[in-house]
Amino acid sequence: MNIAILGLGTVGTGVAKIVEGADAMTKAADLHVSHVFVRPEKADASKRLTSDYDAILNDDDVDAVVEVLGGIEPAHSMILDALRHQKHVVTANKAVVARYMEEFVQTAKDNVVQFRFEASVAGGIPWITNLERTLRIDSINSFHGIFNGTSNFILDQMTKTGASFDSILKQAQDLGYAEADPSADIDGYDIENKLCISLDIAYDTLVHPGDNLPKFGIRTIQAQDIDFFKQQGWVVKLIGRSVRHGDHFSYVIEPMLCRAGSIEASISDNFNYASLHGDSIGELGFMGQGAGMLPTAHAVVQDLLDVKCSNEHLDRCFGKTLQLDNRSDEGTYWVRTSAAQFKELAKAWHPVEHDGYFKVEDIDAQSMHDLMKELLLIDANAFMARESGGVD
Amino acid sequence: MNIAILGLGTVGTGVAKIVEGADAMTKAADLHVSHVFVRPEKADASKRLTSDYDAILNDDDVDAVVEVLGGIEPAHSMILDALRHQKHVVTANKAVVARYMEEFVQTAKDNVVQFRFEASVAGGIPWITNLERTLRIDSINSFHGIFNGTSNFILDQMTKTGASFDSILKQAQDLGYAEADPSADIDGYDIENKLCISLDIAYDTLVHPGDNLPKFGIRTIQAQDIDFFKQQGWVVKLIGRSVRHGDHFSYVIEPMLCRAGSIEASISDNFNYASLHGDSIGELGFMGQGAGMLPTAHAVVQDLLDVKCSNEHLDRCFGKTLQLDNRSDEGTYWVRTSAAQFKELAKAWHPVEHDGYFKVEDIDAQSMHDLMKELLLIDANAFMARESGGVD
Repeated sequence: MNIAILGLGTVGTGVAKIVEGADAMTKAADLHVSHVFVRPEKADASKRLTSDYDAILNDDDVDAVVEVLGGIEPAHSMILDALRHQKHVVTANKAVVARYMEEFVQTAKDNVVQFRFEASVAGGIPWITNLERTLRIDSINSFHGIFNGTSNFILDQMTKTGASFDSILKQAQDLGYAEADPSADIDGYDIENKLCISLDIAYDTLVHPGDNLPKFGIRTIQAQDIDFFKQQGWVVKLIGRSVRHGDHFSYVIEPMLCRAGSIEASISDNFNYASLHGDSIGELGFMGQGAGMLPTAHAVVQDLLDVKCSNEHLDRCFGKTLQLDNRSDEGTYWVRTSAAQFKELAKAWHPVEHDGYFKVEDIDAQSMHDLMKELLLIDANAFMARESGGVD
Repeated sequence: MNIAILGLGTVGTGVAKIVEGADAMTKAADLHVSHVFVRPEKADASKRLTSDYDAILNDDDVDAVVEVLGGIEPAHSMILDALRHQKHVVTANKAVVARYMEEFVQTAKDNVVQFRFEASVAGGIPWITNLERTLRIDSINSFHGIFNGTSNFILDQMTKTGASFDSILKQAQDLGYAEADPSADIDGYDIENKLCISLDIAYDTLVHPGDNLPKFGIRTIQAQDIDFFKQQGWVVKLIGRSVRHGDHFSYVIEPMLCRAGSIEASISDNFNYASLHGDSIGELGFMGQGAGMLPTAHAVVQDLLDVKCSNEHLDRCFGKTLQLDNRSDEGTYWVRTSAAQFKELAKAWHPVEHDGYFKVEDIDAQSMHDLMKELLLIDANAFMARESGGVD
């Protein structure tokens, strides 16, 4: 099978590396990189490195296009063009998938080709594949996970060393784990894309980034917070989770207090963990590399092999109109703030002070996140975390 | 697709339950249980509950046979008969698969049908599927895991409560987790079957239970051992593992000391965990229910759906003649024994006594297991565990 790779960044390079270095005994050896789409100044005289996308689209020998450009445009248009030219498309681009899932899936159907995006969520972990597989039998009742390796690295290092957020963030940037502008990782935007894609598949519905989805990151966490919670037997993790009740589902991204000794607490460094709960399978969790050149490229190549083997993709029409409802998702939160006004703001939930932290019980996620939005206007350094207890 | 279930025990009942209760929107709804093979006294006038296996074999409407009888015979013969009658076979029977893997796979090939056995290892965890999937691209360098839920339950409860092995074993038997004769679970025989099957697939080679494979179970563990290791920051887990070096591989089943806070240490109750390490994917771990009616039946139904979708099975010829070599697998072991002779027995490795335990460093797994065999003849209560450090 001939493939064209759009973009020769980290993941694109990894895909070429795996395909071209494939052991002849493996299925990966059946793939061939016929074109790589690059910027005009990187194109060469051979047709292999080219900046002429029309040539790729009109080449009947190209069976599949791998989109690893990242970002919204031109990725969105180029994916649609490829599908309309009856090319299968595999992408690792979470932002564009989260935003245009329905359009891509429908266009692929209309053109009788496959659209696959395993690498867009949790990197090398076969999360989408196993989620779809579980759905062949079960309804998904809930899922949750550590979907961002950079923030997990920061929290893990803070927990292990006692160092400050700023010094560990700096270290993560030096290691190449975090961007110069780290907001996508530490404010939950990266997780939001991954959770939207997971939700679309898990519940056969459509949720888009920005659809008023509550997220609270780890930007304001301090070494003292890690230490305070540790003394109570908790480990802080940034968790995305969703629970379904009939036609309603909750969806929240927030720091959670996981019991020391729990599987979530054990996820170290920049690893990811994703777990689902199904009717008959019960709890099923997956741990692995959520990013990195080879693990992510591995997931892309797996998609290509599924295309090649004509393995069926789970049919999703996104027709279920589930209601987002974070009002019924109640729990216990801990808040650190220097703002004297917090007691007044949160008085409906009778916050109780313990060693400089407020414990707020029986509050729903929506109200808690709304409250924190108000609080951050007064105290930009405020932090909150939720007791796990009922992670799923 | 019409299926015949051989045996209506726990798993067989679970398969019927999932298939017959399937949501019409799921793929599982495409399956139909046309026959259930039962003992003559349980057969009824309908053809559905029957003790006439020939009738099933000669019924062209039966597409697949689910073997959940357990044990070696008649399971072995009935599987072969089904394959020879061009029926796909799905089994959850680890003992028969570990022993006759090659014969089943070859007979299935000869008759152009599928032979699948996902449920035979780690119950509901899609371990075989994901192992095969990884192998489409990667070589497997190593794998390890907690493959037996009963022994994990016992160790977890001993760790959490401080109670004795005997009292927790009794509790496991009362809960139905452990058999009246618990040896398969606590002496490593159950894990041996699962590890042989995993090895066959991972390395495309054949390893059979009893092939001089070192295994040391948890029969002799005492509350004081759990406590002693806990004080040093370790949690005891019964781990099966294998590491490949070129044409050699190690293979050991033994109690391991996992660091508190590690993912292995976090696996609670009767859950299983299986982890592989591949060239490009790196470490990839799976956590879930390793037994139980519905999770195991879920795995069986997944196999049936793969048969139905004509999803390709990874082609294994078992042609690699890898050498078992536990001599190069060196590590540090801790031994508890009341036998004064131990120091003499182990003198080549200079054991050092700490608080009533002997620490033996830089000893290979084969020598250590051989040593324990000798020691158990003198001190039937002796216990040993290996420091993880290099679990994979």
